[in-house]
Parts: sequence; structure tokens; C-alpha cells
Amino acid sequence: MSIPAGTLGVVVQSVERAAQPVIDGLAACGVATVHEAQGRKGLLASYLRPIQSGARVAGSAVTILAPPADNWMLHVAIEQVQAGDMLVLGTTSPSDAGYFGDLLATSAMARGCAGLVIDAGVRDVRDLGEMGFPVWSKAVGAQGTIKETLGSVNIPVVCAQEVVYPGDVVVADDDGVVVVRRAEAAEVLAAALAREANEAGKRARFEAGELGLDIYQMRERLAAKGLKYV
Amino acid sequence: MSIPAGTLGVVVQSVERAAQPVIDGLAACGVATVHEAQGRKGLLASYLRPIQSGARVAGSAVTILAPPADNWMLHVAIEQVQAGDMLVLGTTSPSDAGYFGDLLATSAMARGCAGLVIDAGVRDVRDLGEMGFPVWSKAVGAQGTIKETLGSVNIPVVCAQEVVYPGDVVVADDDGVVVVRRAEAAEVLAAALAREANEAGKRARFEAGELGLDIYQMRERLAAKGLKYV
Amino acid sequence: MSIPAGTLGVVVQSVERAAQPVIDGLAACGVATVHEAQGRKGLLASYLRPIQSGARVAGSAVTILAPPADNWMLHVAIEQVQAGDMLVLGTTSPSDAGYFGDLLATSAMARGCAGLVIDAGVRDVRDLGEMGFPVWSKAVGAQGTIKETLGSVNIPVVCAQEVVYPGDVVVADDDGVVVVRRAEAAEVLAAALAREANEAGKRARFEAGELGLDIYQMRERLAAKGLKYV
Amino acid sequence: MSIPAGTLGVVVQSVERAAQPVIDGLAACGVATVHEAQGRKGLLASYLRPIQSGARVAGSAVTILAPPADNWMLHVAIEQVQAGDMLVLGTTSPSDAGYFGDLLATSAMARGCAGLVIDAGVRDVRDLGEMGFPVWSKAVGAQGTIKETLGSVNIPVVCAQEVVYPGDVVVADDDGVVVVRRAEAAEVLAAALAREANEAGKRARFEAGELGLDIYQMRERLAAKGLKYV
Amino acid sequence: MSIPAGTLGVVVQSVERAAQPVIDGLAACGVATVHEAQGRKGLLASYLRPIQSGARVAGSAVTILAPPADNWMLHVAIEQVQAGDMLVLGTTSPSDAGYFGDLLATSAMARGCAGLVIDAGVRDVRDLGEMGFPVWSKAVGAQGTIKETLGSVNIPVVCAQEVVYPGDVVVADDDGVVVVRRAEAAEVLAAALAREANEAGKRARFEAGELGLDIYQMRERLAAKGLKYV
Amino acid sequence: MSIPAGTLGVVVQSVERAAQPVIDGLAACGVATVHEAQGRKGLLASYLRPIQSGARVAGSAVTILAPPADNWMLHVAIEQVQAGDMLVLGTTSPSDAGYFGDLLATSAMARGCAGLVIDAGVRDVRDLGEMGFPVWSKAVGAQGTIKETLGSVNIPVVCAQEVVYPGDVVVADDDGVVVVRRAEAAEVLAAALAREANEAGKRARFEAGELGLDIYQMRERLAAKGLKYV
Repeated sequence: MSIPAGTLGVVVQSVERAAQPVIDGLAACGVATVHEAQGRKGLLASYLRPIQSGARVAGSAVTILAPPADNWMLHVAIEQVQAGDMLVLGTTSPSDAGYFGDLLATSAMARGCAGLVIDAGVRDVRDLGEMGFPVWSKAVGAQGTIKETLGSVNIPVVCAQEVVYPGDVVVADDDGVVVVRRAEAAEVLAAALAREANEAGKRARFEAGELGLDIYQMRERLAAKGLKYV
Repeated sequence: MSIPAGTLGVVVQSVERAAQPVIDGLAACGVATVHEAQGRKGLLASYLRPIQSGARVAGSAVTILAPPADNWMLHVAIEQVQAGDMLVLGTTSPSDAGYFGDLLATSAMARGCAGLVIDAGVRDVRDLGEMGFPVWSKAVGAQGTIKETLGSVNIPVVCAQEVVYPGDVVVADDDGVVVVRRAEAAEVLAAALAREANEAGKRARFEAGELGLDIYQMRERLAAKGLKYV
Repeated sequence: MSIPAGTLGVVVQSVERAAQPVIDGLAACGVATVHEAQGRKGLLASYLRPIQSGARVAGSAVTILAPPADNWMLHVAIEQVQAGDMLVLGTTSPSDAGYFGDLLATSAMARGCAGLVIDAGVRDVRDLGEMGFPVWSKAVGAQGTIKETLGSVNIPVVCAQEVVYPGDVVVADDDGVVVVRRAEAAEVLAAALAREANEAGKRARFEAGELGLDIYQMRERLAAKGLKYV
Repeated sequence: MSIPAGTLGVVVQSVERAAQPVIDGLAACGVATVHEAQGRKGLLASYLRPIQSGARVAGSAVTILAPPADNWMLHVAIEQVQAGDMLVLGTTSPSDAGYFGDLLATSAMARGCAGLVIDAGVRDVRDLGEMGFPVWSKAVGAQGTIKETLGSVNIPVVCAQEVVYPGDVVVADDDGVVVVRRAEAAEVLAAALAREANEAGKRARFEAGELGLDIYQMRERLAAKGLKYV
Repeated sequence: MSIPAGTLGVVVQSVERAAQPVIDGLAACGVATVHEAQGRKGLLASYLRPIQSGARVAGSAVTILAPPADNWMLHVAIEQVQAGDMLVLGTTSPSDAGYFGDLLATSAMARGCAGLVIDAGVRDVRDLGEMGFPVWSKAVGAQGTIKETLGSVNIPVVCAQEVVYPGDVVVADDDGVVVVRRAEAAEVLAAALAREANEAGKRARFEAGELGLDIYQMRERLAAKGLKYV
Repeated sequence: MSIPAGTLGVVVQSVERAAQPVIDGLAACGVATVHEAQGRKGLLASYLRPIQSGARVAGSAVTILAPPADNWMLHVAIEQVQAGDMLVLGTTSPSDAGYFGDLLATSAMARGCAGLVIDAGVRDVRDLGEMGFPVWSKAVGAQGTIKETLGSVNIPVVCAQEVVYPGDVVVADDDGVVVVRRAEAAEVLAAALAREANEAGKRARFEAGELGLDIYQMRERLAAKGLKYV
């Protein structure tokens, strides 16, 4: 973590990862619950949208800093992927080009890659859907990229307005993407599980027709604030 | 209707509603037809998008004015919901936060709520889809909300650039959302049904290969405007 | 092609088209491959999105220049459609109105029209989906249009930031829309097929776990540019 | 105020206005202060931008509901303007057309109109600047409008996501536009003046180098929340 | 004009231009008047904004098709500039990079260039303002460009959603940019001057307090449409 | 720099700064030149716009991470400002609220603060202009903020899609904002000055009418790429 964000021309090969059961647990909790559980931080910007519906995954981040419309570093990054990792790509200046398509997905899946979070565009989205490779992207577009300029792999990158460090746990589903610092992952999972347990009880009461006004005892506080029924 | 839009801290408990057969009829006609039938007014801004595909619903509006990133008033509003009503939420300043998720949907469905139209964000969208609760929203996002500041329920609210009064009929499908004033609902339904009857005849002629140029007798008027075939 | 873009009040009736096998071949290759094969030109702006998922079509362009919120010229254009053609609509000033719905789709399908690419809005999208008529549009919206002002048919039009000439081949799928000049279509198809053949071999190697770094022999050039592994 | 928003074809001729000294006082306080003084409600969306720099005005709203790209109702509204009034225009569907230019500004100024707030476009902006007629608009554009379809004058209108009632006080400066309900105007002015008096004392302390941390006695509360200095 | 839009690698050296007095006359009329005078066509998209205030110019278009973030063709184009010409740049795919700065402006001004209209970004805008070189652009940004890939000069280009042919007259001021076909320029000027003469008389009547309702005799038609005064 | 981005509740009090002559030198070179001189990295997103015209400043970053619509941390940060520093604010989720106005500017100026770069909104912009306090912001808006939730001061923050570390040199002018890592500042200044010296010679040649085609000897390479003059 001592290499600053924005450094060009570096590949960091040793990345610490969270324990797999923690990662799996965070995936099962989902983005909204994890985001709440860690104090409402780490949510990537909502312009990142899934190209598929219903996927819910988590993995350790292999981070990529890429120049605009240049996907060379993706090839470099895939060599660093371990089974279950997520690729996370930010750019040095904004681009909607299609950095990633069916060939790169084939390569990434052969390494066991769990998915891609990309602050740029992807293409071959019908093929990616059929292959079952989940992607969260800023854009869909066929515009091609080149392989001319260096970026970096496994340094801190900005992706959709959040910093992602290599080895952070990235959780993604239909609600978006959230990043959990590796060192906090176990603690966040515990908080998320506690939150889920609490919500299960609430859900049963809501299903039975009880109101949030009563379950959360809001009526008195609302009246104190001055709410008037007319 | 005598409480002005923007008033804070008020819950109106008595709301007149249109007759259920009128509401059901408007739902069956769909947004595009209803919008035409009432003289092309009442269409909410097209940035409201369904989180599901294929839903077509209508209901009486229970309106909510909410502060940015504060969903307290949703709990207050659900108590005012009668079976078949639609929740319609506008904000005092713009917000993409996720005001509504699976727990509130559970509560709303327990009251018979028909759906939600929200000029803000929602979350737990995979769960909402599985529950079959239809939502039209400005955004999808996991960012949470608080319960700190009063808004109002069942006053006139701006939602996606239209005013919705409590008790108006709100019709929503894949084309968007349209609001029909309660007092005009029966008359609009009659006009919509007449329109549909007229379109059915047209559709058969189009299917048989007749051209709009002939069905609508456009050729003469086009020539009079100066259209030249070369 | 001697009528300049932007001319109003003209319908060109004779349009040369590419050979059907070429058109079908381009459809099968898809947008991303065709765009690469013709030197990365001709891609329409990525704000055009399909209203359906999974469609992949191509056809000869019947072009339409339409005034804002006025769909009169669509009726004029449908008479010019031959089986397999694509309607391509640009506007004289931006509009999100719903120019096209189920009745016009019925008429277009009766003529054998293959689909619509429209730099404006469409409506009745649930019906269009059920009818299987593919559309790529800038917006979905129920706002109606009028029939008051002349545009033109089969002149060069700007659609989503590209010029489309009548008779050009338009290819569209989930990745977007690309236009191929009629005179270049056969040559572009050949290049696209060569590209596909080449990719098939690559795909097998990626599936077997080989890296792009090795398949494309990138390591030396990366080192020469100064990439450092740490 | 009994005519609902969205009604077409009506001109209300009698509008109550706030007292002129109240209106002038609100103008002098400015948008940010007035917005705070009335409890942070009534702010129009920030996409409304002044075409000039440095203007600070207030006036009673003469409201206009106009169809897209149709400025007929502006002519109708100008007859209803009294000296010092502000024109406030919303549309039945979004439009960036140039509804207002130098001729209409000449007419409005001849009636003593104080300015225009328009949820659409304006043109002749260089001329408007030279004439000293202040405008807050969504867009600048030369696209012309027609005079074909009725809207309404002096009914409640949505302008930039807020409802403005005829006779409301509209305050506008470089920070944006805020609406004050006529019935609350005097009370809001009093609160705004109190706020200004309070700020004047604060400003002197800030100029002398005192910190907000001390002026507002924040240190203890920050520490209680857990803020750590390292 | 026989080279199609989108062709790469071509520089057309002979371009016909309109007569200078016609060009000067169109500049004096301004964008809004010229746009009306030619039947409301030819207006470039309103996202093009001037980087300066108050400039009003016209010139014959020297057109440039440029790759994304590659400004090589600007150097090629400047050799084709004659005194009074306007540079008009479109891109093969969208880019906000800064294609043009103070050095290129120095070169263009040395050739007598009247200004730049660019569907991309510019930089050194403070310097450009001090030099008095007018620019209408999509963006301001310091991001640099490269000189790697061919585009074309003096072929038809799409700039801000309009086709501009080489030699067309481009008129630009604070309201935006409009293109006039060379062959129509004299006729459009005549119509614009007639329009201005007509407006001068109207302006005097407006200044005297007459209403548009009376000047344009609108009252009867409004009543016929059903407008009600209450 | 060992505190990760996104950490809440921390104020770092010791920040190393670059030498003042280096900072001043970078300010004099301006954003575009500095961005080029450091290899085209570090440019903040172009949606940050100056609220004034013509300012060109640089300073050491005092960084602020703030919750949405909560400006409490600005008060905490101002205590950390030394003469010549720049305040740089990012948020934990997007906000256009007005975090900063004339009172905070008074306080910041009393500490010698050189300016503000803020990925959110500001208000009182007319006053800020009169006070001569330069600001680059995402939005202008009167919407107020609260003082409820902790953020952090002087940790790495994301501002307009770039990471800024405390003590980095931030350079801002009409072209935008660029960040220079503190450790690289002297070297970047040297490169920027070399670039300026080189450009001065070029400018004289451009003024004399020489073409870039000849100054940069482009003709041969263009021909080799296949450029054809017709």
C-alpha cells in the first residue's frame, strides 16, 4: 500500500487477501446490508450498472489503472488473478470505450476470476451473459481500445469515485458495488450477519401487518418533532 | 387540496379516491393511451424507470414529501395506505439515496399497496423483483437513509416534474408513469376506451398491409405542404 | 446521394441496397466485430440502447429526417420499406417524444421491416417486445407526437452522431449500432469473417489457460516501455 | 388557488401579491439566506442558471404553463404583469427551445417586469444582457417556438421541481432561485433579517481569525462523536 | 461533396466559398435570426458553448474529422484555412480531450482564421480569451491529445448533431452555432434581413407598451381555441 | 499516508508540504502545462468548474472527507490550514449541497487559505467573487448542510475522480485542476519550465506564419500513414 494512487508502470505481485469464508459471507449478505454494516462508507457511484440481472458476488480486488481507451493492463492483470478474485479497473481519464469482451472474459474465467467492476465500457455483452461472467460497468459500447501505454496493476485505484486497494473485498449485486477494506472484512461480516438476524425478526412482524411506526416506536418522536394529523 | 405543496409536518388522513373499476380500467389501457386520452398532460418525467419488466398497474396516490436521504415519512405513509393504493414520493431536494427496500415493501404489501413511484432511489431490487412489488424510480442505489426530519403525507407533491395530488389515479407501465386527476378519471377512462376501440380497427388494416398514408388520408395534405417524391 | 443532409420536404424513392447475403453475414458477425473490421469507424453513439435483449439484426437503411415531436415522416417512410430494411430516424432538433408505438410497428412488420434505430423516443415498449420488433432508441416515453411539419425520407441523416446514407447497412445488437457504407459492405464482411476466424483460434488458447501476455507476445514490449514488477 | 396544477386553457386575472417592502427585503437578503430562513424548503433545482452575473431580484410570480416548444402563453401572461412581477414558466413536457428573446423582453420591460425564471430555453442572450433583463433558465438555445396550443396563466406550475403558485414571492440571484409562499413572506423576511444580523457578528469574529470550532463551540461535540487527532 | 462522411485519410484542397459580403451579413444577423430565416434547420446542438462572451462571427467551414483524443488533423487543416474561415471539428468517437490550445490558436490566427467550432474540448482558455480567438466547444479540459491516427479534412463531418459540409457558412454567437448551406447562403441572408426589418417595427411598438396579443392579433384565435379568463 | 482512504473520524495534524517556490512555479505554469509535464496524470474530472474567471493558483492540499450535505469537517479543516494551502473536499456519497459560503470563506482567508477545490456545491458565489476567494466546484446551489456526522481531515480523498493526498500540490486555473504528488513536485516543475521554454520558440514561429506541419516535420509521417490530398 505504499505506492501512491496514480503511479504508472508498476505491477505489484504480492497481495494479501481476506479469508475465503469471509468473502463468501459478504457476498451472501449483499451490497445494501454490507454498506450499512460498515457505517455507510465504501459504496461505489451508482452509475456502475450490472450488465446482467440477479448476480451477487464478492472477491478480492485485483486493481488496474488504465489509460483512456487502452486495455493493455487488463492482460497484465489477468496473470495476477487467483481463483475467486474480482478485477477492478479505473482509468487515468474518463473513457466509455469497450475495454473488455468475450476473449478477455474467456481468459479471466480460465483463471477463476469471479467478475469485473469497470469504470469504463464493455462489449460483447450478449456473449458475456451467455458465459455467465458478471460485470458492473459505466457503459456498454463496441468502441475498441489499443495497447500502447502503461498503467499499473495492484496499486490503489479510483473506481467510480471510491478508492479500491488491492486485496480489498469487493461485493456486487443488482444494487451496485461496495468495497470493504481487507483489514475490516471479518468485522464487517459480523456486523452484517447481526443486521440480517435483526431484520429477519422485523420482516415477520411486517408480514403480519404491524407498522414500522409501532415496531420502531416512532409515534412519540414524530409527535415531538411536531407532526400533525389532520 | 387546500394545503399548499411544500408544507412540512402534516399528515392528511381523509383522501377521496376514484372508483375501483375506473382505476382498473385505466390500468388496462396503459400509460400511452391514458396520456393521449386526457389531452397529453400528466406524464411524469421519463427518467423514472421501472425496476422490473412488464408490470402495468394503477392506484390512488398516497403522496409523500420527504427530505433528502430521509425515509421517515414512508413509515408514516404506509399507515394511510388502503388496498390498491400507490405510494408516490417526491423530495424537498434531489436525492438518489435508497429510500425503500425489502422490509418496507413487506410492510406495504401487507397493507395491499399496489406499487411505488419514487423520485429518488430504491435498493434490494433483486428482492423486490422476487416479491413482485412494482417500482418506478429515478435511481437504484444502496446508499441508506435516516429518520430525522419531518416531511408530509397526502399533500400535493412534485414527483418527476409533475404535481400529484392525494387521491389522483397514478398509472404506470414499461412506458413510464402518468397521473390522472381524480375528478377527471371516469371521463379519461371513457376517452381511453374509445381510443382503444378505434385503434383496434386500425391495427387490423395495418396488419393487412395498408399504409398509414392511406388509412389516415395523408397524401393530399403532404402534397399541399410541398412534399416532393424524386 | 446528391441531396445534402438537412434538406426538408423530399422523398427519394430509388435506393441501392447491398446484397442480402452480405447483409446477413454482417448481422451474424455483430456490431463489435464489424466496427473493428472497418477500421473503427461508423459506430453510433452509445446512448442508443436496445429496448429488448439479445436481438442481432442488419438491414439496408431507409433514412428519415423528422422535426422534433413530429412523426409524420415515419408514415411516409414505411411506404419505401422493402423486406429486410431497417428504419433509421434522426431529428432536426433533439426530442425524447415517443415517435413510434405498436400501430406503426404493425405497419412496418407488414412490410417486412427488420427493425428501427431512432435518435428519439419510442412507446408501447411492452407490446413491441411481445411483437418481436427490435428497436434501438435514445429514450422510452409515452409523450405523443404530431403530424404537422415536413421532414425528408432517404436523404443523408445524422443519427446518434453518425451520418447514415440511404442504403447503408445498419448492424445492431446488444452492444449498440454500427453503420457500414453500402459500397464497402462486401469488403467489410470479408474482413469481419477473417477476424472471427482468427478469434476462434485465440479463444481456444484462452480457454486452455494461456495468457494474452504470451499469446500476443506482449512481455517484451511491456518491459521495453518500462513496466516494473515489484 | 383552487385550480389544480396541469389544467389547460385558463387565465386567472386576479392574483394577490405580497407587500412590496417585503418583496424588496427578501431580494436584499438573497437566495441562500431566504432558503435557510424558511426551513430549507422552496429551492428550485440547481440546473436553473442565470444568463447574467450579479443580478439579485425578487417579485410576485405570474405563472405560466406552456406546451413544449410553444411560447404562445408568454404573450398572454405579459398582459397580466404588474410592475415588479416575475414571470415563472413551466412546461407540460421538457423542452430546451428558446421561448423568450429580445422582443418579448422589450414587451415585458415595458410592463415593469422584474425578470424571468424559465424551466426551458432562452435566446438573444447577448441582447438580454445589454438590456439588463435578468433571466434564470435551464438552457440557452436559438431553436424557435410556435404558437399553436393552449397552456394556462396564473395557475400552480411546476418549475424546476418546485410548485410555484401565482403571487408567491420568487427570489433569484447567482446562487439560484427560491420560492416563498405569499402567506409566509413577511414571516420569512423577519427570520431572514434575524439570520443576517446574527451572521454579521459572526463575520467579524471570523475576520479576526477566530475559528468556527470555537465560535460555535464544536470541539466538545466532535470529541463526543469520537473525532481523533493524530 | 462526393466523398462520404466518415471517410478517413483524405484532404480536399479545393473548397468553394460563399461571397464575403454574404458571410458578413449573416454574422451581423446572428444565430437566432439566421436559424429562423432558413426554416429552423441547421442549428448545432446546444451543448456547444462559447468560452468567451459577446463574440458574433461567421466564416466558411474548413471541416475536420478527428479520431478521439488525437489532434493531428488540426495541423493539416490549418494549411487549408483562408482568411475569414472557421475551423469545424467533429470526432469519430466522443472525446472531451483538449484538442486546441494557445499554440494552435496562434497558428490559426496567423492564417486569418475567424474561430473554431469543436465537438470536443479545448484548453488554455484564459490565453485564448486574451488573444481574442473565439471558440465554441463541448468541453474545457487540460487533457492532452496525441498525433497518431489519420482523420480527414474538408469532407462532410458531424459536429454537434448536424452535418457541416466544407464551404458551408457557419454562424456563431452567444446563442450557439448554426450552419447555412453555401448554395443557400445568399437567399438565407435576404430572408434574415427581411426578418430583421420586420422586427425593428415590432420592437418600437413593444417599447411603447403595446402587447403581442394586439400586435399579432392573437385574441380571437386564443378564444377560438377555448382560452378562458377567470 | 498510512491511513487508508475512506477512514472516518480522523484528523491528521502533521502534513509535509512542498517548498513554496516550487508551488509558486507550478501555479505560474498553469494546469495544462503541468499536466503534460508529469506525463498526463493527475487531472481532476472536468466537471469541476471555476466560479470565477482568470484565477490561477496553487497550494498544498489540506484534504477533507465529508458526509453528504454535512460541512462540519470544513470547520475542523480550517484549523489545519497554513498560509498558501488549498482546501480539497471529497464526499462519502455524491452531493450538490452548498457546503461553503461567505462565512467559511472569511474564516479560510483569515488563515491565508489560497482557495477551495470541492467535489460538491458552494453558495454565496457573488460574495465569494467580490472577496476574491477562488473556488472550483461541481455545483452552485443554496441548499444548506448540517453538522451531524464525522468525516476526516488530511487523509487521502477522492476528489473529482482523482486521489489527493494531504500535502500534494494542487494547481487550478480556467482549464481545471491538476494534482502533483509532493515528492514529485520539484521534478514536475523542472519539466514544466522546460516545456514552456520550448513552447516560446514555437510560438514565435507560429506567429510568423509557419505551419505545424513544417515546424514538427509531420508531412512525411502523414504520407507514410497514407494521407491523400485530392
